[in-house]
Amino acid sequence: MDGRRPDTSVREFEITPIVEALCAASEGIASWNANHGGRQALPSREEVARILDDLRSVLFPGYSGVSDLNDETMHFHVGAVLDRAQRSLREQIQRAFCFHCTLDPAYCVGCHDHTLETTHRFLQRLPRVRHLLATDVIAAFEGDPAASCAEETVFCYPGVLAITNHRIAHELHQLEVPLLPRMISESAHARTGIDVHPGARIGEKFFIDHGTGVVIGETCEIGDRVRIYQGVTLGAKSFPRDAQGNLTKGIPRHPIIGDDVVIYAGATILGRVTIGSGSVIGGNVWLTHSVPPRSRISQARAWESK
Amino acid sequence: MDGRRPDTSVREFEITPIVEALCAASEGIASWNANHGGRQALPSREEVARILDDLRSVLFPGYSGVSDLNDETMHFHVGAVLDRAQRSLREQIQRAFCFHCTLDPAYCVGCHDHTLETTHRFLQRLPRVRHLLATDVIAAFEGDPAASCAEETVFCYPGVLAITNHRIAHELHQLEVPLLPRMISESAHARTGIDVHPGARIGEKFFIDHGTGVVIGETCEIGDRVRIYQGVTLGAKSFPRDAQGNLTKGIPRHPIIGDDVVIYAGATILGRVTIGSGSVIGGNVWLTHSVPPRSRISQARAWESK
Amino acid sequence: MDGRRPDTSVREFEITPIVEALCAASEGIASWNANHGGRQALPSREEVARILDDLRSVLFPGYSGVSDLNDETMHFHVGAVLDRAQRSLREQIQRAFCFHCTLDPAYCVGCHDHTLETTHRFLQRLPRVRHLLATDVIAAFEGDPAASCAEETVFCYPGVLAITNHRIAHELHQLEVPLLPRMISESAHARTGIDVHPGARIGEKFFIDHGTGVVIGETCEIGDRVRIYQGVTLGAKSFPRDAQGNLTKGIPRHPIIGDDVVIYAGATILGRVTIGSGSVIGGNVWLTHSVPPRSRISQARAWESK
Amino acid sequence: MDGRRPDTSVREFEITPIVEALCAASEGIASWNANHGGRQALPSREEVARILDDLRSVLFPGYSGVSDLNDETMHFHVGAVLDRAQRSLREQIQRAFCFHCTLDPAYCVGCHDHTLETTHRFLQRLPRVRHLLATDVIAAFEGDPAASCAEETVFCYPGVLAITNHRIAHELHQLEVPLLPRMISESAHARTGIDVHPGARIGEKFFIDHGTGVVIGETCEIGDRVRIYQGVTLGAKSFPRDAQGNLTKGIPRHPIIGDDVVIYAGATILGRVTIGSGSVIGGNVWLTHSVPPRSRISQARAWESK
Amino acid sequence: MDGRRPDTSVREFEITPIVEALCAASEGIASWNANHGGRQALPSREEVARILDDLRSVLFPGYSGVSDLNDETMHFHVGAVLDRAQRSLREQIQRAFCFHCTLDPAYCVGCHDHTLETTHRFLQRLPRVRHLLATDVIAAFEGDPAASCAEETVFCYPGVLAITNHRIAHELHQLEVPLLPRMISESAHARTGIDVHPGARIGEKFFIDHGTGVVIGETCEIGDRVRIYQGVTLGAKSFPRDAQGNLTKGIPRHPIIGDDVVIYAGATILGRVTIGSGSVIGGNVWLTHSVPPRSRISQARAWESK
Amino acid sequence: MDGRRPDTSVREFEITPIVEALCAASEGIASWNANHGGRQALPSREEVARILDDLRSVLFPGYSGVSDLNDETMHFHVGAVLDRAQRSLREQIQRAFCFHCTLDPAYCVGCHDHTLETTHRFLQRLPRVRHLLATDVIAAFEGDPAASCAEETVFCYPGVLAITNHRIAHELHQLEVPLLPRMISESAHARTGIDVHPGARIGEKFFIDHGTGVVIGETCEIGDRVRIYQGVTLGAKSFPRDAQGNLTKGIPRHPIIGDDVVIYAGATILGRVTIGSGSVIGGNVWLTHSVPPRSRISQARAWESK
Repeated sequence: MDGRRPDTSVREFEITPIVEALCAASEGIASWNANHGGRQALPSREEVARILDDLRSVLFPGYSGVSDLNDETMHFHVGAVLDRAQRSLREQIQRAFCFHCTLDPAYCVGCHDHTLETTHRFLQRLPRVRHLLATDVIAAFEGDPAASCAEETVFCYPGVLAITNHRIAHELHQLEVPLLPRMISESAHARTGIDVHPGARIGEKFFIDHGTGVVIGETCEIGDRVRIYQGVTLGAKSFPRDAQGNLTKGIPRHPIIGDDVVIYAGATILGRVTIGSGSVIGGNVWLTHSVPPRSRISQARAWESK
Repeated sequence: MDGRRPDTSVREFEITPIVEALCAASEGIASWNANHGGRQALPSREEVARILDDLRSVLFPGYSGVSDLNDETMHFHVGAVLDRAQRSLREQIQRAFCFHCTLDPAYCVGCHDHTLETTHRFLQRLPRVRHLLATDVIAAFEGDPAASCAEETVFCYPGVLAITNHRIAHELHQLEVPLLPRMISESAHARTGIDVHPGARIGEKFFIDHGTGVVIGETCEIGDRVRIYQGVTLGAKSFPRDAQGNLTKGIPRHPIIGDDVVIYAGATILGRVTIGSGSVIGGNVWLTHSVPPRSRISQARAWESK
Repeated sequence: MDGRRPDTSVREFEITPIVEALCAASEGIASWNANHGGRQALPSREEVARILDDLRSVLFPGYSGVSDLNDETMHFHVGAVLDRAQRSLREQIQRAFCFHCTLDPAYCVGCHDHTLETTHRFLQRLPRVRHLLATDVIAAFEGDPAASCAEETVFCYPGVLAITNHRIAHELHQLEVPLLPRMISESAHARTGIDVHPGARIGEKFFIDHGTGVVIGETCEIGDRVRIYQGVTLGAKSFPRDAQGNLTKGIPRHPIIGDDVVIYAGATILGRVTIGSGSVIGGNVWLTHSVPPRSRISQARAWESK
Repeated sequence: MDGRRPDTSVREFEITPIVEALCAASEGIASWNANHGGRQALPSREEVARILDDLRSVLFPGYSGVSDLNDETMHFHVGAVLDRAQRSLREQIQRAFCFHCTLDPAYCVGCHDHTLETTHRFLQRLPRVRHLLATDVIAAFEGDPAASCAEETVFCYPGVLAITNHRIAHELHQLEVPLLPRMISESAHARTGIDVHPGARIGEKFFIDHGTGVVIGETCEIGDRVRIYQGVTLGAKSFPRDAQGNLTKGIPRHPIIGDDVVIYAGATILGRVTIGSGSVIGGNVWLTHSVPPRSRISQARAWESK
Repeated sequence: MDGRRPDTSVREFEITPIVEALCAASEGIASWNANHGGRQALPSREEVARILDDLRSVLFPGYSGVSDLNDETMHFHVGAVLDRAQRSLREQIQRAFCFHCTLDPAYCVGCHDHTLETTHRFLQRLPRVRHLLATDVIAAFEGDPAASCAEETVFCYPGVLAITNHRIAHELHQLEVPLLPRMISESAHARTGIDVHPGARIGEKFFIDHGTGVVIGETCEIGDRVRIYQGVTLGAKSFPRDAQGNLTKGIPRHPIIGDDVVIYAGATILGRVTIGSGSVIGGNVWLTHSVPPRSRISQARAWESK
Repeated sequence: MDGRRPDTSVREFEITPIVEALCAASEGIASWNANHGGRQALPSREEVARILDDLRSVLFPGYSGVSDLNDETMHFHVGAVLDRAQRSLREQIQRAFCFHCTLDPAYCVGCHDHTLETTHRFLQRLPRVRHLLATDVIAAFEGDPAASCAEETVFCYPGVLAITNHRIAHELHQLEVPLLPRMISESAHARTGIDVHPGARIGEKFFIDHGTGVVIGETCEIGDRVRIYQGVTLGAKSFPRDAQGNLTKGIPRHPIIGDDVVIYAGATILGRVTIGSGSVIGGNVWLTHSVPPRSRISQARAWESK
């Protein structure tokens, strides 16, 4: 190296042509980013995560954040956290409504009142959600021989996390809030591998063990005291299309599961079939027809290869 | 808009009734949050995550945090990180013991000594854990044609992350620490979709490829040089109950896997069965009985629908 | 307690012997941490995560970070984010090259130029990546009756996240960058449970629904308009070894999937087989042979146990 | 210690009476927190700090955040950062306007337009601010023998930080934005000990060296090429009151400093006096009358104590 | 460059000798780090900063953190924040007590009770602190013609921040808590340049304007309605020593300031002198003797140099 | 409101003209941002802050970060922290050298070796720095009657923080590292209001009490056992210029302070004067001539105004 400055022509390149190509592409290809891109803020994933943490801490006081509550201080904490959560939730619900709305949000007065009322109705359902979750926790403890106490299932079990998110998402789905319910169910999906559509109706004392790979579709109806294991799919068999060949949305197309049903790992149940109460569906079973109450279904037997 | 202040009666609502309902519900329904809620801090998920990062960085020096160690500086870093980890671990172990304990922690002297001794014994096992993990890394490299070097498997493979967490959790489980082992295994489960119960006993050179959906139960015993793929379940077939109908906890109820066994994707093996050494279990197989050494088991053949 | 200092001999222990054992073990067992440990920094997981966030925000402007872009400001944001991303990417690519390289990085001039050229070529492919992703988004919207608009799939669907990471990772894999492609695909795997090897070639309008447990192997070739569901494995059947018994790396060993194929949940297709265009593979099917175009394959029927 | 549970009656106390006393006190004493407390959000200190960082990075590109800009990428970065800053600034200006406003913000349409126009006018002044700051940087380099280059003064000198914040705050003050200008000047005050009221008018090439303890009052007028040192006060002598004994606000009551004046450490100049151009005011001087151009003022001489 | 590995002997050096020298030095020189180093945790600066933020938010509800409180939600927030603050404060007070204590903290039962009682007594004084601060805020608004409303002084004025910290620190000092009061006053000193010793007794309606450089000593006694400006020192004149030549600690050695006194910028008042009520002390004055009520003291006049 | 979309023409404005004006201005005015802007990274303020934290924690082990060290673990921590600090320091020193250098850093081999050697020499001086700081801590304890123990001064006293930063900065200044020494002294200046130029030479047992407003110039020389108070300036009287009117840099122009000197609050000493050993300089004194050993200097007496 002789001290002369080396030729650095290779060392830099221009990014402007790529920037232009990317901006052009975003205009040219499709309408899927032009409609809403330039208008207003989408709901914030980070904020939704914080709301979920807050809701969990009022639904299960003492299990996160401040853990040494007593009867005196619980009111303060539940009140303060709920107030913080509802204020943030209002903002996110408003963003979600605006996402599907064309009026300018700054002037969107009706939307504002609707947001407030929706938030209020959601909060009013929380005690009911809390009651259902208490039954789920009991189911988790009773259903897993490895659980040493009920508190452990609240603290550690992915199935309890998933059903908590679901019961919250389901209330928002019932109130016809767009986007947020799906964000909430995806948040649980990402952490647990359990994918429950916010539309699914689920009874008391529901327990998902291990859970990775579980899929529960939008129009499922699940009774009380149902227990399912990892890898179970409760899905649609086919997607009806209208005369123009477009998917018909919202039609009941997922299974109805009766009370006291157990579905073992990897079973796949597809279509608007009914699994009768008290049935046991074996692991890895592929089922596309209804079965009567108290059925016992299992897979074809494996055999030894030659 | 004429300048008059609009009617805002809709715009606010009271949260106090909801707070009261939530606090009441938490008293009324169940014992599952009253027993420990008002007493003391639970183990901290964030702190356990930091301890795991620290333990990984002493078990695999140079793969995280400071990466340009040499022989001189490695002692400093391993020592400093281990000291930080053990101090934090002590605190979390104490919290875990207290979770199952009714004595006031401020006066709980025996608990304190027990914590210290447990932490010490755990640290003493780390070199053994490190040895086992070294064999696992070799198994990962040898078992995956897509791996370009052994280091890549330490750095990127979810199976290596999962077995690392498991070997740590298993030692704490052996030392009868409550809660923490499960938190550690759930931490891996959330990141990898691999759910290994801390109680499972696993031999050398163990490799899980891809891994999503793998479940390994509490009383499993797995030999040396076993390789399993995504979606494999080594579970319980049924849960024995005592005369009162309660689950009997702790009974051996999961498979025993011999040495040199390979279990392909989606296979489900349930109950206290034995898979003989050298066997190969095919994908999606459903198996509830023991098989002798060197068995080849595969699923019923699919056929073309009409 | 009489005021005397209690015996605290139990309360402390020495960590030096454990530190020494850990450092010794790391020298003794294997070469897997000595080769690179003392040399230079590995790519940073946190930095790679930031690069991915940045690339996603230039590929889908308005969906993350700043969301109220207009035509004027989009250029500024795409330009600034791309510039930040490319600078960080250069550093990570350089680290990845050095990871496989023995020359001292401070003097490694050729490596530096190679890094720059590789980064530039990668950036030049981004508009093409963006085009492909636009088709994937349309496929997601068209393929899921539960999707209310295309934007929702960009914002919430794990399948769209996974294919975005894959298309980025695949370009880096084509440019023969080590380590980074795998880190990128593992990042999606950890968040979605979808494990796509960066080497897999995937056509337009690709959609993975739900996705947990999907595995797509290194040498897969997938046509246009393919749709697959959770738990599908496109894997290798066996791993050819050379005369020395070592795995032969890089040989085509995964399926070829034609255009317009649908593969339902839990199906497992193994080996270098071909699934003819227009075929439908049923759930939980285990398939190790080729099938002609327009095949309909489904699992052996389950039956009721006695 | 005999194992009995010790008396813990001392260990807990009730906080409810204190909470009630604090809430009651806040109602009883004064109007100073009831007027605005329950209405809307105050400007955010954190957000204002981020805006200042952003403005500094467009006024001095390359000195913070991304530092290796070139002519191509500078446009992208200045544009993206300015866009982010103006969006956040709008929000904070709106909050500041609302702080002094009684109409409900959700319906406060005029306020919204006024905010937008104010933000726009502020942005349009930035190139002028930048010009002035460039002269200040030159003054800092020329005025301090310890400065090795002009860039060092941008990067390290508290006086340059303080004048940067001041020139920004002054523009907002001219636009009659409440609260924010003071927050911006206090931000510099906290970091540098230099307290310049946003209302002060300051000419080109202004330099404050060291600066701790400098105070420059609201109605000061300072010419070009002025240099002042630590501990200098340009303050008011007395505060005129109206017939009711209340302070009369906004009356000129601070010094006018001519061009090319130097004021040494610790000098105190009070009241609406004029310091003629070209004067030099010595350290620790206490001055409450005007002095003609080119004056040399110094303190009474110290003498040796007996 | 010919491809040979360059001589890198210069490139690395050993740090072990420096580490040893540093550890040895720390043993050899002095007792100032050996006494407490190996024993227990010092109070945490970060935690003390959080406690101060919390206390400020209960003393001035609505000015930080959550800002849109109403009468309903204020109780929840004040209660929750106070509970969090008191729990953390307990821990820090315990650490501070232990800092001056030789008994092993794990067995230090009396210390624990003393901590609890001290924390409780501190909390009980908060309403009184709040009352005093309300008078200080009014004084700040009345004393500064540039203040547009009282709220602005709470939100922006360094003098209000400093007196808030002082009134908190003073209560802890009265309760004989070690270390923490000084940490709290230093926290204000670092942010405002105002250094008030926690021991100083200060009456109602106290206002410090600008404030940088103000020093108020340990044994100062300040009456009601006192106003002081930047750079004022209320210090000790000399430090009495005992027969052994050691400083005698705790003797009254700082000024007594009467009611309704104003002290202008840069004045220095030293020793146990009394400034009579209603006096005005001019800027830069150096005063070491008492003055009667209603005195007017000013500096020797500056004159023009030749 | 009649439902029509309101005219929103006021609501948006273009930022492009402002961006262009800002970029143009940055080219047009001055050379002060063009020389280095497009070349390479400046030293990082955040990184320098971390290095300072690390150095403080090896100079005063146990006072920050991990506080319960014992003899065994101290070596690990000092070693690990020092290794981390030196690696980061190397990078920052290299950046600082490059800031003053025109050669391309990627090829700047000599610079690299020089950086390494400079870092090594700096580390070798740390034990000496530590010795000096130990004497400073003793001086602080002995000099302040309000200090309850020496540890308190390490933990809380701004004067100890300032002298620590100074002694570190001074070593780097001696090694002719650009920029970093000034960044380090400004870091202390911002936190304490104490501005000590890195070039100043300061003897043992140096103590600054309170400290706000202290300025110590570049060419000061201060003996052993010197104590100074808030607001003291040791500055230059005038700045000699060369024939072209430019400041002559580096000439001795600040005071020489002998051993055992005390300088009280607000004193200003300017020019290359000598304060003889054992002198006491009173508060607010303005001194521009030398004084012999054991002088007692005080200010002109204040008097009562008429």
